[in-house]
Amino acid sequence: MPRHEGDGQPLSDFSLTPEKLNDSMSTLFTSSVFRCLEVSPTHVLAEQKIDQNGLRPGGFVPGPVQFSLADLVLWYLTSAAINRIEPMALTSDLSIRFLRPGQGEMLYARADLDKAGRLMIVGTVKIWVDDHEDKPISVAQGTYVLPQPA
Amino acid sequence: MPRHEGDGQPLSDFSLTPEKLNDSMSTLFTSSVFRCLEVSPTHVLAEQKIDQNGLRPGGFVPGPVQFSLADLVLWYLTSAAINRIEPMALTSDLSIRFLRPGQGEMLYARADLDKAGRLMIVGTVKIWVDDHEDKPISVAQGTYVLPQPA
Amino acid sequence: MPRHEGDGQPLSDFSLTPEKLNDSMSTLFTSSVFRCLEVSPTHVLAEQKIDQNGLRPGGFVPGPVQFSLADLVLWYLTSAAINRIEPMALTSDLSIRFLRPGQGEMLYARADLDKAGRLMIVGTVKIWVDDHEDKPISVAQGTYVLPQPA
Amino acid sequence: MPRHEGDGQPLSDFSLTPEKLNDSMSTLFTSSVFRCLEVSPTHVLAEQKIDQNGLRPGGFVPGPVQFSLADLVLWYLTSAAINRIEPMALTSDLSIRFLRPGQGEMLYARADLDKAGRLMIVGTVKIWVDDHEDKPISVAQGTYVLPQPA
Repeated sequence: MPRHEGDGQPLSDFSLTPEKLNDSMSTLFTSSVFRCLEVSPTHVLAEQKIDQNGLRPGGFVPGPVQFSLADLVLWYLTSAAINRIEPMALTSDLSIRFLRPGQGEMLYARADLDKAGRLMIVGTVKIWVDDHEDKPISVAQGTYVLPQPA
Repeated sequence: MPRHEGDGQPLSDFSLTPEKLNDSMSTLFTSSVFRCLEVSPTHVLAEQKIDQNGLRPGGFVPGPVQFSLADLVLWYLTSAAINRIEPMALTSDLSIRFLRPGQGEMLYARADLDKAGRLMIVGTVKIWVDDHEDKPISVAQGTYVLPQPA
Repeated sequence: MPRHEGDGQPLSDFSLTPEKLNDSMSTLFTSSVFRCLEVSPTHVLAEQKIDQNGLRPGGFVPGPVQFSLADLVLWYLTSAAINRIEPMALTSDLSIRFLRPGQGEMLYARADLDKAGRLMIVGTVKIWVDDHEDKPISVAQGTYVLPQPA
Repeated sequence: MPRHEGDGQPLSDFSLTPEKLNDSMSTLFTSSVFRCLEVSPTHVLAEQKIDQNGLRPGGFVPGPVQFSLADLVLWYLTSAAINRIEPMALTSDLSIRFLRPGQGEMLYARADLDKAGRLMIVGTVKIWVDDHEDKPISVAQGTYVLPQPA
C-alpha cells in the first residue's frame, strides 16, 4: 500500500530491517517504548504499548504521545529512504491532525514516503489503536532534513 | 486505493457523481478550470488544464495553483463525505508541502478521506502532473468545517 | 505584545490567573512539569524545567517535548480566551516547525491568540530556551475545538 | 513589531526596499497585483487590491487568494532575510488557517521572520482586510528553501 514509489532505494539494494532500526533505538536511547514492525524503501510500520498510567481524563491517548510516535516513524522512514540509520536527520516540521479519541492497548503508526530528496524526506503518517486501522485517531505529514556537508 | 473507509456514506446510498460536482461549480462560479473525474464516499480525483501563460520562471506550475486545486478537491471530498453539495462548507486549515517542480499539460489531484465528523471533514491530498502519479509535486492535508445549526 | 486583540474576553471581566491554571493541572494530572507564568485574554507564557536525562544525542531538547509544551500553552490560551478552565477542549490540529537545536535549563513557550470563535480557538506559539527569546527553537500554530452542545 | 530579531541582516547593511521588490515582481511577471509597502531584515508588509469579480458566494475573499498573498510575503521575507532578491528560493511548505470571512477593498499581509538559516527561511504571516488588522482573516507559517550549491 505505498502511496507512490517514485523515490526511495531500489528494493534489490535495500538492507534495512526492523531489527536494525530497533537495535539503533536501544543504542541511542537507554529505553525505547517503540518497536518497528515493517520497513521497506517507501514505508514503515511501528507500534507502541499504550501507557495506561499516562492517559488523558476519559482514558484517551494524549496528543503528544501520538506526535511522538509520528515523529519516530518519520525518522524510521528517513532511514528507510536513504537505506542507512542517520541519527543526525532532524525533523524540520510536522503537522498533525487529531481525528477522534483513542482508547486501547497498542498504538500503531504507518508512514508512507512522499519524497526522498538529497536534502529532505517528506512522508505521510496514519495512527490508530489496536485493530482499528480503518478508524485512524490522527494523521500527519512531516519533513526531515538530512545533514548536509559543510 | 482509499486509505481507510471507516467514515463516509454507505456506498448503497451514495448519489453524488462527477457530473453533479462539475455542474455545481459551473453554477457557483461563471467559469471553472477544474473537472472532477471520480468521486466515491471516501475519495475524489480531479484535473485542471495547466495555464501555460501563468507559469513560474523555468516553466513550473506555481504553488498557489496547486494550493487552489488541493483546496477544491477537499471541498469535493467534503461533499462526497456528506453525500450532498454544501456551498457553505469552509476550509478551516490546509497544510501543503511542495516536493518537486512540476511541468506538463494537466494537473491531477486525488483526495482521500481521513475522517468525516458531524463538524469537520479531514482529508489527505496528492497532486501530480500528467501521468507521473508516482512522482507527486505536492502533498497536503486539510480540514473543512461544516455549517452548524445556530 | 499580543499580536491582535479583536477576540478574547474584555479585560475587566477576566478572572483567570496563572495560579488557577497551575492548580487545574495538578488536579487533572498527578504531576505536572509545566508552570504558567502569565495569562491574559490574548496570551499565555509558560515554562518547563528541561529534563537533562531525556535529551537527544548532542544534548538537545527533543521535538516531542517542544510539541508537548506547545500543545499545553494552546490549551492555556483556550482557557484564557473563554475565561474558564475547560478540560474537554481538544487539540484539533497543530503544526510545528523546528528552527534550531536547543540546550539549557528552562524551556519557555508563549502563545498569542489569533481567533476566539464559538467553535474554535486558534493561536500562534513561540518556544525558546533560557533567556534566548530572540532565538526561538520552534514556532507553531494550532487549533483547539471547544465542546459543543449535543 | 518584529517578533524576534536574532536572525536577519544587520540593519546597517540592509539595502532592500519596497521599490526593489516591486520592480523585481514586474520583471519576473508581466503583471503583478501585489505591492510591497514595508521591508526590514525581519518583516515585510504587502497589499493587494481585492478583485471584486473573483469573490466567493457571499462576497468573501477566496482562501486561495489569501494563500497566494501569504506565499508572496514569505518570498519577500526570504529576500529581506538574505538582503537580495532570489528568484530561485522556493516554498517548501506552508500551513494556513482561515479564521473568519473577509470582505473589503484591500488585502494586507505581514510576515515576521522566525529563522534565517543557510538552508531555510521560516516566517509567520497574518492577513487582514482594510484597517481590520486586529481581526485577521487568516494566519500562516511557512518555510522557503534557498538554492544550494550543487
